[in-house]
Amino acid sequence: MAYEFLGPRKIMAGENSVTSVPNEVRSLKGTKPLIVTDAGIASTGILRRLTSVLDQEKMSYGIFSEVEPDPEIAIVERGKKVFKEGRYDLLIALGGGSSIDAAKVVSCLATNEGTVKDYLGAVVFKNDPISVIAIPTTAGTGSEVTFNAIVTDKDAKLKLFIKSLQMAPKTAILDPTLLSSLPPEVIANTGMDAFTHAVESFFSLRSNLITQQLSLSAVRLIYPSLIPFKENPKDTDLAFKMLHGSCLAGIAFANAGLGAVHALSHPIGSHYHVPHGLSCALFLRQVLTENKNAAIEQYGVLLEALGMSRQGLSPDKSAEKLIEAVDAFMKKLGMPTSLSAIGIKHEVQPMMIEDAMKSPGLISNPKKFDRDKIVELLESVR
Amino acid sequence: MAYEFLGPRKIMAGENSVTSVPNEVRSLKGTKPLIVTDAGIASTGILRRLTSVLDQEKMSYGIFSEVEPDPEIAIVERGKKVFKEGRYDLLIALGGGSSIDAAKVVSCLATNEGTVKDYLGAVVFKNDPISVIAIPTTAGTGSEVTFNAIVTDKDAKLKLFIKSLQMAPKTAILDPTLLSSLPPEVIANTGMDAFTHAVESFFSLRSNLITQQLSLSAVRLIYPSLIPFKENPKDTDLAFKMLHGSCLAGIAFANAGLGAVHALSHPIGSHYHVPHGLSCALFLRQVLTENKNAAIEQYGVLLEALGMSRQGLSPDKSAEKLIEAVDAFMKKLGMPTSLSAIGIKHEVQPMMIEDAMKSPGLISNPKKFDRDKIVELLESVR
Repeated sequence: MAYEFLGPRKIMAGENSVTSVPNEVRSLKGTKPLIVTDAGIASTGILRRLTSVLDQEKMSYGIFSEVEPDPEIAIVERGKKVFKEGRYDLLIALGGGSSIDAAKVVSCLATNEGTVKDYLGAVVFKNDPISVIAIPTTAGTGSEVTFNAIVTDKDAKLKLFIKSLQMAPKTAILDPTLLSSLPPEVIANTGMDAFTHAVESFFSLRSNLITQQLSLSAVRLIYPSLIPFKENPKDTDLAFKMLHGSCLAGIAFANAGLGAVHALSHPIGSHYHVPHGLSCALFLRQVLTENKNAAIEQYGVLLEALGMSRQGLSPDKSAEKLIEAVDAFMKKLGMPTSLSAIGIKHEVQPMMIEDAMKSPGLISNPKKFDRDKIVELLESVR
Repeated sequence: MAYEFLGPRKIMAGENSVTSVPNEVRSLKGTKPLIVTDAGIASTGILRRLTSVLDQEKMSYGIFSEVEPDPEIAIVERGKKVFKEGRYDLLIALGGGSSIDAAKVVSCLATNEGTVKDYLGAVVFKNDPISVIAIPTTAGTGSEVTFNAIVTDKDAKLKLFIKSLQMAPKTAILDPTLLSSLPPEVIANTGMDAFTHAVESFFSLRSNLITQQLSLSAVRLIYPSLIPFKENPKDTDLAFKMLHGSCLAGIAFANAGLGAVHALSHPIGSHYHVPHGLSCALFLRQVLTENKNAAIEQYGVLLEALGMSRQGLSPDKSAEKLIEAVDAFMKKLGMPTSLSAIGIKHEVQPMMIEDAMKSPGLISNPKKFDRDKIVELLESVR
């Protein structure tokens, strides 16, 4: 029953809320921010939306647009160098989870000795990090409100996790107008990531009365909005709901942890660089099926959060109805059910098994999975 | 659509989580806390639960147990004097909303010039307040996570509001074992306050996608738990749900504001010192009836949060079903429907009308109430 919950610092939301960035920079005592983003965002009008409000206020700033999907160690080290050499005093992350994670790591490295590898796992940084304003341009990772970041060790084919309460962005800005040019498949993949966060945090053994409510709220926002949003990326109401869903799921999983789906999907991501939401989708149905008897009563609660009735259904039937609904949802979103379906020849490497076995997601998963089960599940996505 | 949301700093929860206070004091860099509480708490085992963990850790502390219901200016000034003279460096509020509000006000006055009356309304304090650890012993006000405090001006028969983001307690500790000796009528009155916070913040014109979800979560926790908890005060599961419900409602209304029920009930509280939840109950049914057409779609959503179906019902029928359900809920809780029912001879004073008209609750209420309507409603509780 005992737990500790940390809320998000500050969330600013609304159409064109990106215009509040200069005020927010000043209220965080920043004078010269560095924008951390990727080449894709930099080449579209999205970056210009941000720079034009900074220009209007005559605020000087720099742009580091070298972030790539699943950013690797060298990229955050480059970001740190640019930050320090440019004498910047605040970070603005503009992009998906990769850019926000990269900015969070740079914020800590910029004020502390050492490199990424010196800070793996749960850490306390000696010096306070640089303040980060996080502006998500996808509705998926929830990184704008979480305490952790993932950096890829390319050579070792490993995802490195850094978790520190100091890493939480000071302000998250949820502006739905920044999402209007997202390609439908990015909406589906990132939305699937957010949906999986909501579901896994809800079932997590580390969940509590607050995170459970946040997870269910996230499901209530994401489930009815994701498919219509994929079909109408310019609908800012749907974008706003998706941004809120992924943000609430982020607050939930930052506090409650995740489960076996994430334990299994990270090694897939490290080896094949498929979008993270897609690798989550590969395992979600099977993990829900495996977990069923370990958390049977919760399945009915989640079913109702999808807007479906469990009246007259046994707990088992409710659980089956939920699993079918999630499966149908993923199919409608066009999620593949195997790696071969997207042209990837998949072989289970011993390292992938080790990597999954070490994941904290396995500890908070309601059912204990042994090595044989992990191998079976990793093999099942061929 | 635009809004700003501030999350709670830190919530620690669980049976006997009061034992984590010494660690929390140290992590907030405190060495000598002053406990702010009331004589009732001080005379029961509840205060001893706290002092014994401080004693065990050989932490020196003081006790200020002079808080009374609806604390007046003189009490917080006394608290400030005790705090400064004793050279304390942290405040622990232990009690209901009155003790927590008093501690929050003392925390600001202790580091800033002036008196309560110098800081009315929304204020920014020049100096950071003293850190407050808030430990609610009722499930009602949500004061452990809100940014405001109410002090009574006894002479002027006025409730003075102070609102400042700096006033938010640094840590809220939700320990259900501290609630086990609550009298049933206190459970009902404080629970009714929490329920009204959830309902009014949900309908507030300042609500947003996050606060709406928090308000609904609070309703989902409070509505099924309050009556059983009143009947079984020693059931810590129910106490835990109620503590979470009032806490989530607190986070919601701190960000979204309240409505006409609070605008009307505060003047009643100032004049008759009836428990705040009780004065809320006096107006809830009528305000829900008045607001109906201004927010008709939301009534069905709230109905579902009570666990009731709106399938096949028109929005109007859903709204009526909700109003009937809330009315039945209040009757089962033993809430009076008039002041005369509890032996109070009520006359509407011009000051009460002015006081209600000035309340921020009227601005965020979905329907605009004119002076005639205010008079009519204040008269209706004779």
